[in-house]
Amino acid sequence: MRMTEGVEWALHSCLNLAWAGPDRPVTAARLAAYHELPAPYLNKQLQALVRAGIVASTSGPRGGFRLVRPLAQITLMDVVAAIEGPDEAFRCTEIRQQGPGGGAPASYRLPCAFAHAMARAELAWRRELAGQTLEDVREQAEAQAPAAPERLRRWLANG
Amino acid sequence: MRMTEGVEWALHSCLNLAWAGPDRPVTAARLAAYHELPAPYLNKQLQALVRAGIVASTSGPRGGFRLVRPLAQITLMDVVAAIEGPDEAFRCTEIRQQGPGGGAPASYRLPCAFAHAMARAELAWRRELAGQTLEDVREQAEAQAPAAPERLRRWLANG
Repeated sequence: MRMTEGVEWALHSCLNLAWAGPDRPVTAARLAAYHELPAPYLNKQLQALVRAGIVASTSGPRGGFRLVRPLAQITLMDVVAAIEGPDEAFRCTEIRQQGPGGGAPASYRLPCAFAHAMARAELAWRRELAGQTLEDVREQAEAQAPAAPERLRRWLANG
Repeated sequence: MRMTEGVEWALHSCLNLAWAGPDRPVTAARLAAYHELPAPYLNKQLQALVRAGIVASTSGPRGGFRLVRPLAQITLMDVVAAIEGPDEAFRCTEIRQQGPGGGAPASYRLPCAFAHAMARAELAWRRELAGQTLEDVREQAEAQAPAAPERLRRWLANG
């Protein structure tokens, strides 16, 4: 089971857009170049963030992407759901009802006990993702690399 | 992000092997037929369970698969790890270090704050999986469908 690398790209792009500031939209090409990512694929992730209401895009010569709300109001869950979709990782296909193993329909009114147990674990994961905001991560990232925000702004200004 | 359907197959196969009992090895073909699953693919999952030390296989005319320990000693995590492998779903590729965005190596001594935050959520998921045994699930499954164990044993006896 593997999450698409688009999640990592989207998370860092949100952080970079926060560092760029609300008044400086950044194009997908520039965001991609900053970390040597393929621009068309990053653009796809950015469009997913637009659909999720996390970033907005403006067109025109000075257009680009910008965050529509502060990092403190964006959780890891918001970004993961935007990129990976809302479906659960474990999807029960009700094999318990198939073939000679299937019993009377009355036995299947409740969800399969395996599906229930797996969903409980996934809920713990989602809760943890929903409990952490990008602002929490920004604070740690800046503590590790205090020069990072200014490096981005300088690079954008010279672009 | 989607878990392979092999996880569902492996979970139900363990339950079926428990219902079959320790003295009745069951072939992959029979286990597959019971829920109308493709035998070659189920066999692949069963081999993964063998490598993980959850089931054992014996050859010969009366050979097949059997559980090597009680369901109370098999967690959901054991089965998921056997089928999906031990890797984390979110794998940081350190894009923060790539391109103009990369800073001094000293900034990268600690793991990326996003990787850390994602790992924390995944740990919550793994803990929950490790805290639930197949015995917990068996109890619920039998409460829902009390005839299921005997239905399997009868079907195997007539096979």
